[in-house]
Amino acid sequence: MSRPAPLSGFPEWLPSDRIVEQHLLDTVRRVFELHGFASIETRAVEPLEQLLRKGEIDKEVYVVRRLHGTDEDADSLALHFDLTVPFARYVLQNAGHLEFPFRRYQIQKAWRGERPQEGRFREFTQADIDIIGRDTLAFHHEVEVALVMAEVFRALPCPPAVILVNNRKLAEGFFLGAGATDPGAALRSVDKLDKIGPDRVADLLMSEAGLSAEGARLCLRLAAVRSADTSFVDEVRALGVSHPLLDEGLAELAAVVAAAAARMPGAVVADLKIARGLDYYTGTVYETQLVGHESVGSVCSGGRYDALASDGRATYPGVGISLGLTRLMSVLVGRGLVSASRSVPTAVLVAVTDEDRRHTAEDVAASLRARGVSTEVAPRADKFGKQIRYADRRGIPFVWFTDTDEGHAVKDIRTGDQVAADPAAWQPPDQDRTPTVVLSSPDEETRS
Amino acid sequence: MSRPAPLSGFPEWLPSDRIVEQHLLDTVRRVFELHGFASIETRAVEPLEQLLRKGEIDKEVYVVRRLHGTDEDADSLALHFDLTVPFARYVLQNAGHLEFPFRRYQIQKAWRGERPQEGRFREFTQADIDIIGRDTLAFHHEVEVALVMAEVFRALPCPPAVILVNNRKLAEGFFLGAGATDPGAALRSVDKLDKIGPDRVADLLMSEAGLSAEGARLCLRLAAVRSADTSFVDEVRALGVSHPLLDEGLAELAAVVAAAAARMPGAVVADLKIARGLDYYTGTVYETQLVGHESVGSVCSGGRYDALASDGRATYPGVGISLGLTRLMSVLVGRGLVSASRSVPTAVLVAVTDEDRRHTAEDVAASLRARGVSTEVAPRADKFGKQIRYADRRGIPFVWFTDTDEGHAVKDIRTGDQVAADPAAWQPPDQDRTPTVVLSSPDEETRS
Repeated sequence: MSRPAPLSGFPEWLPSDRIVEQHLLDTVRRVFELHGFASIETRAVEPLEQLLRKGEIDKEVYVVRRLHGTDEDADSLALHFDLTVPFARYVLQNAGHLEFPFRRYQIQKAWRGERPQEGRFREFTQADIDIIGRDTLAFHHEVEVALVMAEVFRALPCPPAVILVNNRKLAEGFFLGAGATDPGAALRSVDKLDKIGPDRVADLLMSEAGLSAEGARLCLRLAAVRSADTSFVDEVRALGVSHPLLDEGLAELAAVVAAAAARMPGAVVADLKIARGLDYYTGTVYETQLVGHESVGSVCSGGRYDALASDGRATYPGVGISLGLTRLMSVLVGRGLVSASRSVPTAVLVAVTDEDRRHTAEDVAASLRARGVSTEVAPRADKFGKQIRYADRRGIPFVWFTDTDEGHAVKDIRTGDQVAADPAAWQPPDQDRTPTVVLSSPDEETRS
Repeated sequence: MSRPAPLSGFPEWLPSDRIVEQHLLDTVRRVFELHGFASIETRAVEPLEQLLRKGEIDKEVYVVRRLHGTDEDADSLALHFDLTVPFARYVLQNAGHLEFPFRRYQIQKAWRGERPQEGRFREFTQADIDIIGRDTLAFHHEVEVALVMAEVFRALPCPPAVILVNNRKLAEGFFLGAGATDPGAALRSVDKLDKIGPDRVADLLMSEAGLSAEGARLCLRLAAVRSADTSFVDEVRALGVSHPLLDEGLAELAAVVAAAAARMPGAVVADLKIARGLDYYTGTVYETQLVGHESVGSVCSGGRYDALASDGRATYPGVGISLGLTRLMSVLVGRGLVSASRSVPTAVLVAVTDEDRRHTAEDVAASLRARGVSTEVAPRADKFGKQIRYADRRGIPFVWFTDTDEGHAVKDIRTGDQVAADPAAWQPPDQDRTPTVVLSSPDEETRS
């Protein structure tokens, strides 16, 4: 077999970058669990007809069939393209066994057949939280999920993140108050602002959403409003548009921003041009920018939906937000911002004096592992210099010798310091127990 | 949407069973990392032609294609059916960036289109370790991986596991020494012992492997040898067959069994009928039985291979062993042996006195979380009895009240005990911090 080539859009990491990814995954999970979210996983496949009915139907999905299957079951299954559609199905399927409001997190891969480009993959990992109620779900959960994700970003080794929030009621109420006959069309037009610019959006607002030139101008002014505190309320009021739905949306968005400003100043910002493509959102919507890396797109998005799932007896409203872990990795690792202190979990390599004494090295390793210290035994009784280089190439900080003049000794191969050590008691310094993951150049990056 | 039905062969777990699965995954990972294995993940798909060339080609694979893809790329990709073939490809692709011997673990899903039955799934999670060398790999790693997996089983909440080991050199040398003209055919015949019985295996040994009636009888006697110590060596010698490859295999198998008996008595047993289907094994082979649950099949299998991958410049010998986590779950959870103490990570529910005082409850929650205590705030300011029932239904052990006569107080809702508590200092007992996972009836199960 000649050397295989990577598959475009299907990222794989070398061991040291995988340690970074594991650190992100562990951090995300820890914060989710601190907030009482329960883990679930769903199967990778869903019935194709369900996937095409829901959500982003313009996305390319991967169809799956058994190589030797019958024609009958051909193309009936496809890989899920997000974790929301499978979760909605899981809730309907298991509603009788779940307690509502049901708080779940889900960290899994998803697949889309789109053309790969920066920050856009064919296979990628998402980390979602959703809170779903039966028939009702209190508004305060819309504040909560934003704060949980803000806490995740504070805990991650990454540039500052800003969660941008808007509210569908606010937008729809404003569009209606400004004279739109089709507020959905107005929303889709404003969503194109970054792509096609204000002039062409104004044209669309008039041609598609039934707005006057003045109404379109007001909508564009609304989309320019952005504030880290509740001052956006007065800015919107000053535009002179009124509608009951607008009042409701302004109050809700102000509550999200005020709560976030109190608990995590700067983490959440009202940005009234945020639209989100998906039809099913009905309240707060979220997008997240990494400061200095806005071009990669949103790394964490979601919103409130009043009826993602319904089974005839009950409707399940929810609010959810989804962190794009692979996109985040593509920034942190792809741009060299973050690195791991070593490529293996190992803290100690036990040197082997000669092959007949391998069992002595294995005894030491067993003793260290029993106290939670990740330990390898050298694969060959080479000269010690070669065994030290084995450790050095992997970033293993300590090499243990079983047969020095003072008996057992451990060497920090970064400094060369060697001290006598008791295999039944020695511990590595805390910062060396497991690989650490750090922002490579925090000064440069957090200032950019 | 009416209530969706589960998809046969694609297991999904309810939250409390998922906590069991997470506990298994965390335990497996912890032991692997203690032994210095580095994590990698590979993409879910491989080129179909690679999958069909390698390994278990009789397995049904799932072909993957983009719904709107061109005919040209149709059917060129398939979901991997194990983690060994993708790992071999990863090693070839990244050889220049890896340090050898390379120790990796990989915990991922795999897919096979086989008919689902007990212990056999279409989507399942495998947890693999492999140690792979460039051109050479020392024998002692064949001892090592068995001991690592034995340690995994000791750490898991499960019935006793016995790792059954055999050696391909031993088997091949014996078959040749007994007069076989096709030792591969002899191996495949013996592999059918449990399915078709000794008489029909004897027929096959004569018709397919070129053995005499006496030779076939000797091979069946070999297959009956089983011992937890090295006494199997004398038993085999007593059969009077000799061959240089047999000597080598006996020595290797004795080394595996002796080392395991010294470190973990009873965990590893020589069983000379173990064959393993895969052609590429060349030394030690492993299978694992759960005592009392042998009918489910092997839960952990693997072996030594001299050339899983080769790129013209180098050959990569290795040894690997793969834990079938979904099969294990189907025994532990499916047979009700193991359960979690609660269905959520949450240790404390903070009660809300009225909605205007929700921020007080949130302050307490933030304080508890800052010390690592998983905490939820009650979703509604219901009567306290209802808030306590919210916690009780999820198994949350503690409910916190912010406005009692003595100020803050925390109630253990299992005992009813309520004590005054300081949100800045209180800690739950260690055993209540996170959900615990226990064998439901260890006496009954470990005796069976």
